Amino acid sequence: MSKDFPSRAENYSQWYNELVIKADLAENSAVRGCMVIKPYGFAIWEKMQAVLDKMFKDTGHSNAYFPLFIPKSFFSKEASHVAGFAKECAVVTHYRLKNAEDGSGIVVDPTAKLEEELIVRPTSETIIWNTYKGWIESYRDLPLLINQWANVVRWEMRTRLFLRTAEFLWQEGHTAHATSEEAVIEAEKMLDVYADFVQNYLALPVIKGVKTPNERFAGALETYCIEAMMQDGKALQAGTSHFLGQNFAKAFDVKFTSREGKLEYVWATSWGVSTRLMGALVMAHSDDDGLVLPPKLAPIQVVIVPIYKGDEQLAAVAAVANSIKADLQKKGISVKFDDRDTHKPGWKFAEYEFKGVPVRIAIGQRDLENQTVEVARRDTKEKTVIHLTDLSLKIEHLLDQIQDNIYRKAVTFRETKTFKADSMEELNKILDTDGGFVYAHWDGTAETEEKIKEETKATIRCIPLNNKPEEGKCIYSGKPSRQRVIFARAY
Amino acid sequence: MSKDFPSRAENYSQWYNELVIKADLAENSAVRGCMVIKPYGFAIWEKMQAVLDKMFKDTGHSNAYFPLFIPKSFFSKEASHVAGFAKECAVVTHYRLKNAEDGSGIVVDPTAKLEEELIVRPTSETIIWNTYKGWIESYRDLPLLINQWANVVRWEMRTRLFLRTAEFLWQEGHTAHATSEEAVIEAEKMLDVYADFVQNYLALPVIKGVKTPNERFAGALETYCIEAMMQDGKALQAGTSHFLGQNFAKAFDVKFTSREGKLEYVWATSWGVSTRLMGALVMAHSDDDGLVLPPKLAPIQVVIVPIYKGDEQLAAVAAVANSIKADLQKKGISVKFDDRDTHKPGWKFAEYEFKGVPVRIAIGQRDLENQTVEVARRDTKEKTVIHLTDLSLKIEHLLDQIQDNIYRKAVTFRETKTFKADSMEELNKILDTDGGFVYAHWDGTAETEEKIKEETKATIRCIPLNNKPEEGKCIYSGKPSRQRVIFARAY
Repeated sequence: MSKDFPSRAENYSQWYNELVIKADLAENSAVRGCMVIKPYGFAIWEKMQAVLDKMFKDTGHSNAYFPLFIPKSFFSKEASHVAGFAKECAVVTHYRLKNAEDGSGIVVDPTAKLEEELIVRPTSETIIWNTYKGWIESYRDLPLLINQWANVVRWEMRTRLFLRTAEFLWQEGHTAHATSEEAVIEAEKMLDVYADFVQNYLALPVIKGVKTPNERFAGALETYCIEAMMQDGKALQAGTSHFLGQNFAKAFDVKFTSREGKLEYVWATSWGVSTRLMGALVMAHSDDDGLVLPPKLAPIQVVIVPIYKGDEQLAAVAAVANSIKADLQKKGISVKFDDRDTHKPGWKFAEYEFKGVPVRIAIGQRDLENQTVEVARRDTKEKTVIHLTDLSLKIEHLLDQIQDNIYRKAVTFRETKTFKADSMEELNKILDTDGGFVYAHWDGTAETEEKIKEETKATIRCIPLNNKPEEGKCIYSGKPSRQRVIFARAY
Repeated sequence: MSKDFPSRAENYSQWYNELVIKADLAENSAVRGCMVIKPYGFAIWEKMQAVLDKMFKDTGHSNAYFPLFIPKSFFSKEASHVAGFAKECAVVTHYRLKNAEDGSGIVVDPTAKLEEELIVRPTSETIIWNTYKGWIESYRDLPLLINQWANVVRWEMRTRLFLRTAEFLWQEGHTAHATSEEAVIEAEKMLDVYADFVQNYLALPVIKGVKTPNERFAGALETYCIEAMMQDGKALQAGTSHFLGQNFAKAFDVKFTSREGKLEYVWATSWGVSTRLMGALVMAHSDDDGLVLPPKLAPIQVVIVPIYKGDEQLAAVAAVANSIKADLQKKGISVKFDDRDTHKPGWKFAEYEFKGVPVRIAIGQRDLENQTVEVARRDTKEKTVIHLTDLSLKIEHLLDQIQDNIYRKAVTFRETKTFKADSMEELNKILDTDGGFVYAHWDGTAETEEKIKEETKATIRCIPLNNKPEEGKCIYSGKPSRQRVIFARAY
């Protein structure tokens, strides 16, 4: 543990990079762009997985597993998909190594060349739709509601832990439907699941919207997204859900016999969130003293630190600590009692503060006499002395309060960083001073979108779903516009 | 669903292959040797994962995630590991695709060649020990107890669903210890965890033992294993746990400062089980009518099938069915009430029998009048009429009985297929008639082991841990031997 890292104000980017490593969430590996997710970071990801997995199952989805590799030719089958994904990929060309003849080590065996190269999946639409062809015959086989938890690889040139890595972990839902309407409802339902999850578990407000055609997933007719704001005012896309129309069904020839006996192409959706959410979690809530974790995702929700001299005092404190621990665990709260004698209380206080543990309970001699403990909350750093009576109930409520407070703080922050701009000059000025989300009129063309991006480095994050119609003029072209869209610089 | 497949007696191998596909567990994919694990099969694997994950955590382990790719040079660092694993591997040589200049599709971009090839992990000792170097400094960092759930790839030439596939899912534990003794205790503890899991959840008895030096994991000083018997008398290795000594610590220069202030190499273990257990589950218990699943791993433990004519009868049956379902779910039992009107009861009976659902409850008109239901168990196919009073308690007990019965049946089967042989002639005769496990004397040399394998196609499955000393003569060489080892043909 070390606090020797820049503050957010000094260098937000470096603050993030160092915090992720020093708080034991993840680190770079020997393989360029691939990260190691450390036990503490992985424990948070496991909590995210467990919640999401239950949400998917509660909405009727089942998990399955599809191959890591995709034959190269599959990428050519869906015209826009190939442009989007068949670029920076890990390509498997050989299947054997051998000892070098000169004894210099091991080399790739040139005789073991694959007839067709295999691509390590950057996303699985192609291999999954090739499989669905064998699973779908009739309307009775629909809807097919499947999710996969998997690793995927996109050969990014510039990588950052969690936010952009060559290999990352994610889930990808792939559903098949009898009608266009059903597929759209599914895509929107899963966007709601994501928004619910990010708001209620990551404690992060999001704006639900659709992407412009330019920013759509390669192969989608509509890409729904949730956009969150980080503490530097930049946007982070936290999840996407795609209505794929019949594009993949046509590419892989997946037809079904309808109730009316007609042979029709199937309608599709796909949707995913990834370990990128770990980056969002850190960037949104943490501070200059380390991680701030929302209680619902904290691997350790409460830590108990004993303050004592000698074995006798420790024994007395431990008796109370273990009793508190048992009470809290009965309520489903995860508790650690850190009675290590290798570190002093002050060191432990700093350690758990840095690791973002939401609640710290300290117990010393005077507490034993008074039947109290000192309770410190990580989010506000407030300390209070609480009587042992009803302690577990109070801690339970406190965890809820902390979850709520972290969320509300993020909502307030976003409000202070949300603006309207009615000219390019205004947009530029806001982006260069405050940053944040800027609502502005846009003429709806890809050309204008591109020009604004070139001039401002901001992209259209989304067209909000709950947008109010408002007549106006495009800030770039002056052409008529009927609604404002959100511009922001983004991760 | 289709029962149109061979019986075990007709063709055990084909029985297995077709059962796995027709029962919707898994299927072959478009990528040679890689399988698709279908939702029903994956639901069983998820149950296995959940139980094992809890067992690992209860024994002090944390999950983490390491890169999919391993630099080629890493394999050369541990001398015996390279021989074992740097052979049939998927090799990534390029990181970009591009459109072919002649417009014929997409091709690998020859300018995007990796400086050093990356191997898709066949197992992760090398990349993990390279990482541990940065994590371990002092005895205070030990033991380091980590597990990873991951996909791995070994380019097998002959593949079979679950039993041997190019890509498979597994968990791999990798631990680091201050002393040799501690590492040995860990390796043995995890073998016990595996044996406990396979016996109590897969309902499959296993023999705990150690492998001969010849059959050890590449890089291990000792490989512990559990061996199970399939219904054709062949052995299946269901899990392994390795004591790795200081081999990987030396290969990756991982040292720690001991309590005494000395710099020493770290001691290691690794251990794993894989989706191969799915194959074991099917091969051990299923019959000519389909899957037989132990209740503890069955995705659906109880299915309720209504027998009715018309909506009015269905409504009456459904009321009772839903009440039973709610009662059972309160006890943590997973229940499906199949009220689909697209299939007849007989079809449903056959379907759930084929899918191995442990208990089927049928409810018809007469049952409503008598306040009874018909309960059928999958393992013995017995049917009984049970009164609604205490039904959920009786079903709960029945599930335990079925779990127990499946296990005891497997124990009895193994007993009838366990033999002693005192000559090569006897060994050959047993293997060619009954098959099974054959206890025989062996002189302890790799040469003899190899010769016996050549002549009989049987390998030494293990030297049982609880072996009784017994003086004897090697069945091949006639040289003295102090204990019998287990020979068997194996998967």
